[in-house]
Amino acid sequence: MIVIPASQRFEGKIRDLILDSTSSFRELTLYGKRIFLTDSVPENQAEMVGMEAILMENGLYSRKMKAERTTVEVGGVTVGGTGLVIAAGPCAVESEDQIMEIAESVRHLGADMLRGGAFKPRTTPYSFQGLGKEGVKLLRRASDATGLPVVSEIMDISDYPIFADDVDMLQVGSRNSQNFSMLKFLGKTAKPVLLKNGMGNTVSEWLNSAEYLLSGGNGNVVMCYRGTRGFEDGTRFTMDIGVMPVLRDKTHLPVCADPSHPAGNRAYVESMALAAVVSGVDMLEIEVHNDPAHALSDAKQQLTVEEFAVLSKNARKLRDSLQK
Amino acid sequence: MIVIPASQRFEGKIRDLILDSTSSFRELTLYGKRIFLTDSVPENQAEMVGMEAILMENGLYSRKMKAERTTVEVGGVTVGGTGLVIAAGPCAVESEDQIMEIAESVRHLGADMLRGGAFKPRTTPYSFQGLGKEGVKLLRRASDATGLPVVSEIMDISDYPIFADDVDMLQVGSRNSQNFSMLKFLGKTAKPVLLKNGMGNTVSEWLNSAEYLLSGGNGNVVMCYRGTRGFEDGTRFTMDIGVMPVLRDKTHLPVCADPSHPAGNRAYVESMALAAVVSGVDMLEIEVHNDPAHALSDAKQQLTVEEFAVLSKNARKLRDSLQK
Amino acid sequence: MIVIPASQRFEGKIRDLILDSTSSFRELTLYGKRIFLTDSVPENQAEMVGMEAILMENGLYSRKMKAERTTVEVGGVTVGGTGLVIAAGPCAVESEDQIMEIAESVRHLGADMLRGGAFKPRTTPYSFQGLGKEGVKLLRRASDATGLPVVSEIMDISDYPIFADDVDMLQVGSRNSQNFSMLKFLGKTAKPVLLKNGMGNTVSEWLNSAEYLLSGGNGNVVMCYRGTRGFEDGTRFTMDIGVMPVLRDKTHLPVCADPSHPAGNRAYVESMALAAVVSGVDMLEIEVHNDPAHALSDAKQQLTVEEFAVLSKNARKLRDSLQK
Amino acid sequence: MIVIPASQRFEGKIRDLILDSTSSFRELTLYGKRIFLTDSVPENQAEMVGMEAILMENGLYSRKMKAERTTVEVGGVTVGGTGLVIAAGPCAVESEDQIMEIAESVRHLGADMLRGGAFKPRTTPYSFQGLGKEGVKLLRRASDATGLPVVSEIMDISDYPIFADDVDMLQVGSRNSQNFSMLKFLGKTAKPVLLKNGMGNTVSEWLNSAEYLLSGGNGNVVMCYRGTRGFEDGTRFTMDIGVMPVLRDKTHLPVCADPSHPAGNRAYVESMALAAVVSGVDMLEIEVHNDPAHALSDAKQQLTVEEFAVLSKNARKLRDSLQK
Repeated sequence: MIVIPASQRFEGKIRDLILDSTSSFRELTLYGKRIFLTDSVPENQAEMVGMEAILMENGLYSRKMKAERTTVEVGGVTVGGTGLVIAAGPCAVESEDQIMEIAESVRHLGADMLRGGAFKPRTTPYSFQGLGKEGVKLLRRASDATGLPVVSEIMDISDYPIFADDVDMLQVGSRNSQNFSMLKFLGKTAKPVLLKNGMGNTVSEWLNSAEYLLSGGNGNVVMCYRGTRGFEDGTRFTMDIGVMPVLRDKTHLPVCADPSHPAGNRAYVESMALAAVVSGVDMLEIEVHNDPAHALSDAKQQLTVEEFAVLSKNARKLRDSLQK
Repeated sequence: MIVIPASQRFEGKIRDLILDSTSSFRELTLYGKRIFLTDSVPENQAEMVGMEAILMENGLYSRKMKAERTTVEVGGVTVGGTGLVIAAGPCAVESEDQIMEIAESVRHLGADMLRGGAFKPRTTPYSFQGLGKEGVKLLRRASDATGLPVVSEIMDISDYPIFADDVDMLQVGSRNSQNFSMLKFLGKTAKPVLLKNGMGNTVSEWLNSAEYLLSGGNGNVVMCYRGTRGFEDGTRFTMDIGVMPVLRDKTHLPVCADPSHPAGNRAYVESMALAAVVSGVDMLEIEVHNDPAHALSDAKQQLTVEEFAVLSKNARKLRDSLQK
Repeated sequence: MIVIPASQRFEGKIRDLILDSTSSFRELTLYGKRIFLTDSVPENQAEMVGMEAILMENGLYSRKMKAERTTVEVGGVTVGGTGLVIAAGPCAVESEDQIMEIAESVRHLGADMLRGGAFKPRTTPYSFQGLGKEGVKLLRRASDATGLPVVSEIMDISDYPIFADDVDMLQVGSRNSQNFSMLKFLGKTAKPVLLKNGMGNTVSEWLNSAEYLLSGGNGNVVMCYRGTRGFEDGTRFTMDIGVMPVLRDKTHLPVCADPSHPAGNRAYVESMALAAVVSGVDMLEIEVHNDPAHALSDAKQQLTVEEFAVLSKNARKLRDSLQK
Repeated sequence: MIVIPASQRFEGKIRDLILDSTSSFRELTLYGKRIFLTDSVPENQAEMVGMEAILMENGLYSRKMKAERTTVEVGGVTVGGTGLVIAAGPCAVESEDQIMEIAESVRHLGADMLRGGAFKPRTTPYSFQGLGKEGVKLLRRASDATGLPVVSEIMDISDYPIFADDVDMLQVGSRNSQNFSMLKFLGKTAKPVLLKNGMGNTVSEWLNSAEYLLSGGNGNVVMCYRGTRGFEDGTRFTMDIGVMPVLRDKTHLPVCADPSHPAGNRAYVESMALAAVVSGVDMLEIEVHNDPAHALSDAKQQLTVEEFAVLSKNARKLRDSLQK
């Protein structure tokens, strides 16, 4: 049971009541609020409700827990504020020249953040697995040169030390979206997390993955939708745009869309990105490559720099027009 | 095999070539072009290609057949032109008062067309099945009073005489999207058709349903996306926004979106409608009721008149901003 | 509301009670029981319940309506009895020689019924559409020659006169599984119906399609599962074997499985057929062709006569071993 | 590129050829064969093919790599041999009494292996997470008492030392089926692995997860199908029985079915288990509890001991009848 005192003044009394009950509990601080997590329903819950504490079974992610929308700071960039945050970069870091060139390009074209994979979750073991630690170092160098904070996927918590200093935001990919061991670990850090949905998961299951992070005390979570599995063969994944208002309804967490993966085809990325912008996303994550035809992964869906220039301009313009 | 002469000048020569071959054929006129449908690949196809005729196995719906986008005229309203067409109205016609009141309201709020079900495909036989013929008459009256052309679903070709005069656009619903007998019949009329996708069909299958209409000679087809079956339980159906650029890529036919059915919840309809507008749809079909709580069907997803006012205004504004 | 008197003795009293109420109603006889369908909940329902009448909102298909399993007679063959009924034959009737040869073969190999398509629902209008009326005549001839009753798909109720005399069981295909106009029409006949599931429908929706037939008074319905849409690309459709115990739980109607369509590959058909037999189906429908490589449709999934011989023998043997 | 010498005699020559080429490579031994994994296509591949080496891009799991079926030894039990292996036990180990009682019961009723979760991947962090290390110890004790080898899920490679001695077979659950870091780690051990399919994955993707294990040198892999995500709401997951012949066609690895999770309802488990047996699975994994109504997880789908007795007997009988 989640017990949230109505205000700081009542924390002590609520704690005393829980201590009086037969429930065990632990405490955490999330978004500046003191929260008690009990292992059962306290017998004296009525007294807590009487003090206007909120008691609920689940949902630190929910708007019942926190009505106002959350913002997440990533290396000086605010996700969830008034501006649209655009993270752009290659599917995978392939070389120093490649990442430096792309980073400079996307910065010039208005990106706020650099994305790039160093550890790559590839369907087969014989596909390019990323540069690993060296890739992270290159991302850092590109970040330092451009001032863009970096988001990159972590596939194994034993790699955490590599990411801790050099990566500003940790991406948890679709294939690890229900890797609860990893989520528990990251929940105990304060690192911003970009949490993708599992391709076979519902929104409700995905929010529960976020709950693993939040209940550890890490509130710096951005939900990133990358499409779900469906039967349509004209695209790579199904981008269910109804997910956006559902998320807006059910959580205070900021929302990102990754249109590159569901599109699976560069010709469709911009259209799907703009649909996400209209749906109110706080952030876009876009795959951009300086030479997509020769990319070592996701060759078909990475945008050219020129295509990204158009997308970036149109996304900003659209966001502005929505805020008038 | 579809054989399309490069221009009118070559029609005679192409016909002669096909007559010389061993293929049987029939002719039709579509979008002002003479088209030959042969039952096999003519041996002398090389000569036709030499005259720049287009030969293809399938795809009167395709942009190879017709590069420029198609427009469909519905009672004085143009679908597929520069303006966004909004059809609004109740799930089902329930009474004269109801349909007259809603028709007046949506006309005032900027709807271009009136929608309303008279014959209703309900999952169970004990749910309200619609007013039938009487419902069509009421729609006609509402149309005459407001000047809004009417779109309504036909469930059986034996009802065609009822629709022929009084309904401006025939809706073929999701459950009849692969009712090929009905499509063949409607293909021989010139009636505008609003063709919904089957909930278990791919875009490619859906376009082939349109091909049944086009190959009969009826080019007045608007593709209306109403969501597909998925596993997400936060909405009623999955609204795969990637379908929009795929359609734009593969067909010259105008595109409509019905966000009411995939939303299944009035709170989500506007968000999903605006996403469709950004994706470039030519038309929206929205369920609006004067008293949704007491509607005889789809109570949860029909908008109030006030909600429709907001959606309509925002959709127009968005469409305008995209055209600047 | 469905009202079912506890026994014949109470019919008159129940009718009087309904007449006393403000509900309108109609009567039908189904499985020898008199049933009243009211348009609302009768105010005096408590009195009916007091007489042990069953009142329920839905489910003439349900085991609450009828605990014992239903049998359907098709030209002398009983579906739903102790024996496994196997219907076999080509996807489409292609010629007299073809259908006669196949019919003789499958009869020799133990088939109980002949299947064959005369009117074919093909995804594109340019694929072979079947021989139509002539195909039905050929089926009749093959039936007369072999003694096997015939099941064939009806795509349009205007074709009903063609089927009425010459076809023993009408197949309603996946694409017309929610063609409620057709179902209502067939509900008023006494013809056995093989009702396939819509590829995007749940079991619950499918049972409601059966309800359209039953509520018209036609209880001769066999539910035929042909797979659902899924994302697996190793087969053509998803054969959800969990559907079988769900049907067994929810309905008294006999169950058939069509493993040919979900397999989409002749190598997988037998395995999937035997799984259905173990799951307790009453009937199998198998596509068999004398020359699959040159079949005009479904070439990859039709069995050769030799493959059918193996399947038929193994299915019978398995069924026998289950009944020991 | 995978390079497999035709026989041991040619290993040296193949190695020399690869050393002569510009490809880098590593070697491994799998199923007694020496295999070379190169990072590119060797220029001199024609010479290798001339020596009847098999070269292929992917598929240590495939029947091209190994025609005969693989057997996996688990604590004295052979999976993939002539007998059907049944693993049974609770969803989660809850206490010493519980696991000891269930282990004794299922052993008496013919189980070959004991299953039980110690580390539980639960959708929400507030659900019972398992007894962890203590749970593993209890499983060991139950195993020692009954002689049944134990299969249990590992959620984090840092827990490997806990499993190494005390658990006979490591289960990789649906949520970690594409946790490639874990798979790479386990690929370097010789521990038998029960690899479940990801609920949103195709068979092809799942086999590629197995490839991560095999390419590390661990050939002791059993593929366990636990259903996929679908839209049917009458069961918990979709048990696509077509997966079975597809696996049989594409891989030499033994196959297990877990009918408990797709059923989601104890009433449907036996039917789905028997369908899997007919489909030729080598192993069943069944959730059994001594008091399902009070189970701390999966209460609805765990069988009672009595229900398991029936399933076990019927599965054995069916397997026997198939082998006659």
